[in-house]
Amino acid sequence: MTVGDLGEFGVVNRITTRLPQGAAVMLGPGDDAAVIAAPDGRVAVSTDLLLEGRHFRRDWSSGYDVGRKAAAQNLADVAAMGATPTSLVVGLGLPADLPLTWLDALTDGFADECATVGASVAGGDVTRCDLVVIGVTALGDLAGRAPVLRSGARPGHVVAVAGRLGYAAAGWALLEAGVPADTPLLAEAVAGHRAPSPPYAMGPLAAELGASAMLDVSDGLLQDLGHVAEASGVRVELDPEAFPVGEPVVAAAKELGADPLEWVLAGGEDHALAAAFPADVRLPDGWHVVGRVAEGEGVLVHGREIGRRGWDHFG
Amino acid sequence: MTVGDLGEFGVVNRITTRLPQGAAVMLGPGDDAAVIAAPDGRVAVSTDLLLEGRHFRRDWSSGYDVGRKAAAQNLADVAAMGATPTSLVVGLGLPADLPLTWLDALTDGFADECATVGASVAGGDVTRCDLVVIGVTALGDLAGRAPVLRSGARPGHVVAVAGRLGYAAAGWALLEAGVPADTPLLAEAVAGHRAPSPPYAMGPLAAELGASAMLDVSDGLLQDLGHVAEASGVRVELDPEAFPVGEPVVAAAKELGADPLEWVLAGGEDHALAAAFPADVRLPDGWHVVGRVAEGEGVLVHGREIGRRGWDHFG
Repeated sequence: MTVGDLGEFGVVNRITTRLPQGAAVMLGPGDDAAVIAAPDGRVAVSTDLLLEGRHFRRDWSSGYDVGRKAAAQNLADVAAMGATPTSLVVGLGLPADLPLTWLDALTDGFADECATVGASVAGGDVTRCDLVVIGVTALGDLAGRAPVLRSGARPGHVVAVAGRLGYAAAGWALLEAGVPADTPLLAEAVAGHRAPSPPYAMGPLAAELGASAMLDVSDGLLQDLGHVAEASGVRVELDPEAFPVGEPVVAAAKELGADPLEWVLAGGEDHALAAAFPADVRLPDGWHVVGRVAEGEGVLVHGREIGRRGWDHFG
Repeated sequence: MTVGDLGEFGVVNRITTRLPQGAAVMLGPGDDAAVIAAPDGRVAVSTDLLLEGRHFRRDWSSGYDVGRKAAAQNLADVAAMGATPTSLVVGLGLPADLPLTWLDALTDGFADECATVGASVAGGDVTRCDLVVIGVTALGDLAGRAPVLRSGARPGHVVAVAGRLGYAAAGWALLEAGVPADTPLLAEAVAGHRAPSPPYAMGPLAAELGASAMLDVSDGLLQDLGHVAEASGVRVELDPEAFPVGEPVVAAAKELGADPLEWVLAGGEDHALAAAFPADVRLPDGWHVVGRVAEGEGVLVHGREIGRRGWDHFG
């Protein structure tokens, strides 16, 4: 059975029956719009567009992984403001010959990733397209906190990261090289490419602790911290020795003769969180200090300025 | 100059500098997420995906018209809940060879359509794609009113429409037939295909007046009222003589030897509003009674059930 066999309304029905609705959803799928609780009186909102062939490949990632990844990168954007994600809405372009098993897995991936933060897919749109296109918008609640912008880092603050770095890049390199992921560590790196595991709860926690700047690492740590440096009018100095380099990243680098730190510093799509904090903030488990904020501009590693290596979608 | 010449960050910058930010936008483009006022404590949210070749053609519609259309159909969804639109976020897939003049016109179309309701484009995402892909999400504020669902129509209520019907279908038929739009009326029909003019303010007004059900007409009036009939568990009986048929629709039908009522009843994409009201509600200018709600099911025209003619995206 394919998407084309069911038709538009059948597909919508098939998707919505697989989507549990969380407490913040006051009106779920089926009307002109969903209605989501925004108790704070403000709503944080972020959107992304994912394209088959560019952001994922159906021969490399299952529908389930694509759903988790698409949800994760938007939920992470909202968490990076210090907000708690409440819901997603999702626009889907689907080929008529797409197997329903793939669509079901995609739906389940969305639902499961949302469930990790108590959010849910509250609405969407389905249309026919020659390739799979996924437009995701995440909403979140700030619970009375000021949003944590990119522009608040000040000289003397520390720079810290939470979550995985380099996993997605290592997994991608393994897949591209055609290296079989036949050990648990290599498999973990490939799984990290297929779907990230952002440290969502660390976002609101960082805001609570007084983080002065924060973002999620989507294009690569150096490039993304470059945005913080620019928006804040400061220099970011990193100490690579301080980075927690995951064993799967080390194992993949060994397998491919690569430098794991390159993936940690320049690899994107893990959706770790990077933040600046005043130096007197006691950081809880989950946050690792990896550098500091200084007067100046740019991002320095070992005192040397590194180009903003990362991903430019039109480069 | 093309999109590819500028690169991702140049494109984002080019777009955002053309987008004025309205009062509801507490944090606009440039961070991980935007922050939008939601004074009601709830937010109405709707999303759509528009694809080049399927929902618009660059040789038939200008970038400006595509922007207005993409904005309009989502703003109308929010208005159809009785909410006042506050903002959009937009994900764009853009070919590298897309001229910047087209992108600028698209951006201006979004900005101008938003301005008609005091909303603004508060954020987005840009990625490269072989065709133009537009993911639009609209947010709106309910201002203390209950959302007007599709399911509240009851026997004895009247059915009314606000806004244009049949213009988009007539314009599309003219374009498809290659008939030059060389009179003001024909040109108006073609303009109606290129960009709709939804009666946004009629949505919150209808909610205020006690509308029992409402939706925006995106797939065709018969099909969309079929959703109301089904969701409400009622029959909708229409009186075609009661419909206000616009002069441009009449002129296009005459030109093509077509039945204007067919476009009015089955044509989509005008984003008129259709609603049910208790019979004792005095409807203000802008709403036209076109039928009534009865016991039963389906949509009847002249007492005869009409198939749900309309647009099935996988049909």
